Amino acid sequence: MRTLYHFPLQPQSRKLRLLLKEKHLDCDLVVERPWERREAFLRLNPACETPVLTEDSGLTLSGDYAITEYLEEAYQEPALLGRAKVERAEVRRLITWFDGKFQREVTQHLLDEKIVKRLYGRGGPDSAALRAGKANIHVHLHYISWLIDRRNWLAGEEISAADLTAAAHLSCLDYLGDVPWEDHPVAKEWYARLKSRPSFRPLLADHWPGTTPPAHYANLDF
Amino acid sequence: MRTLYHFPLQPQSRKLRLLLKEKHLDCDLVVERPWERREAFLRLNPACETPVLTEDSGLTLSGDYAITEYLEEAYQEPALLGRAKVERAEVRRLITWFDGKFQREVTQHLLDEKIVKRLYGRGGPDSAALRAGKANIHVHLHYISWLIDRRNWLAGEEISAADLTAAAHLSCLDYLGDVPWEDHPVAKEWYARLKSRPSFRPLLADHWPGTTPPAHYANLDF
Repeated sequence: MRTLYHFPLQPQSRKLRLLLKEKHLDCDLVVERPWERREAFLRLNPACETPVLTEDSGLTLSGDYAITEYLEEAYQEPALLGRAKVERAEVRRLITWFDGKFQREVTQHLLDEKIVKRLYGRGGPDSAALRAGKANIHVHLHYISWLIDRRNWLAGEEISAADLTAAAHLSCLDYLGDVPWEDHPVAKEWYARLKSRPSFRPLLADHWPGTTPPAHYANLDF
Repeated sequence: MRTLYHFPLQPQSRKLRLLLKEKHLDCDLVVERPWERREAFLRLNPACETPVLTEDSGLTLSGDYAITEYLEEAYQEPALLGRAKVERAEVRRLITWFDGKFQREVTQHLLDEKIVKRLYGRGGPDSAALRAGKANIHVHLHYISWLIDRRNWLAGEEISAADLTAAAHLSCLDYLGDVPWEDHPVAKEWYARLKSRPSFRPLLADHWPGTTPPAHYANLDF
């Protein structure tokens, strides 16, 4: 059986869980705690990082970049990276926006400070970082709203891996209660559309030991 | 004319300069200083990050991920992302290794501390970060040597974007005199092979104001 080794509160893992479901691909999920450096996992990916996907053929893929591109090449429908060159450029630009810029300016300051640092034994959250993350997220929610005022989905008329990437980050932060939805109604409406898709349901049932998401996290009418 | 907007001491920009040359694609180069937030550049890429590639067709591509995948789709020979699925998985795994793990563990601690922070007005280098970068680089040079003991190039028998990505990072650090080549003869031999390729020559002529690379930087017999 196809297997995804993932960490539930990692945006890059969540993106792939969404992507697999949107492509109607069955997959076993194995929760991996990379900080434990499990030997069998290190043999799959010497970088010791989630996500990792193994196929029945024996093919092992490490990292969300390799897995996303592979899934699109191997299972073309529905297309989630766009079709024409200009669409593909736009989807990948926005993936870089969220996995690069948003990750550095928001996710790292909130998710890594509150959850990841502790798991890796690197101490508690830094209050200056938390403040920066809480300030920066508004810029990105504005940008999502700006795009959604002009398009049906982030990268164009069709849903794409750009939406899944952005939603994967935001869903982790929403789990922490750190998304100021009320200030950004257009972004909220876009997220509500994603949240109501069947692919999103498993994420809303996630529960990580020692943490409790706010009541609205799993609520479709939030 | 095709144009690449790049920052000479950014590994992701250097990777694309190498990739364009390896694919025999002519390209104008424009040095971009993203911290100046030039308005015409912001219109090309609202993330205000290099690299950006514009094609004569009007197509604009932002970020090394979108540009790398586009170049491979549009100009298939020579293939630099591998051909069979298992090869492509391996090339992309190693791109993630160097642009992810190596970037975080080494490049950020040395290049960003010594050069980038100052350009963005974020103060001088942090000595603990420099120490961490100088310690971590050995692990990665060991890994390169381990791969090269088993393969002709990092991802297999053919040169690929994995080699170009790794060499792009190392060439920036070599410009700072921060690569302990003498401790890693196998990695050094691999880098010497890359350095002697015509695609590498323009990088060796780079000179950034206020910095002077060590004498061995541009020397093919270092």
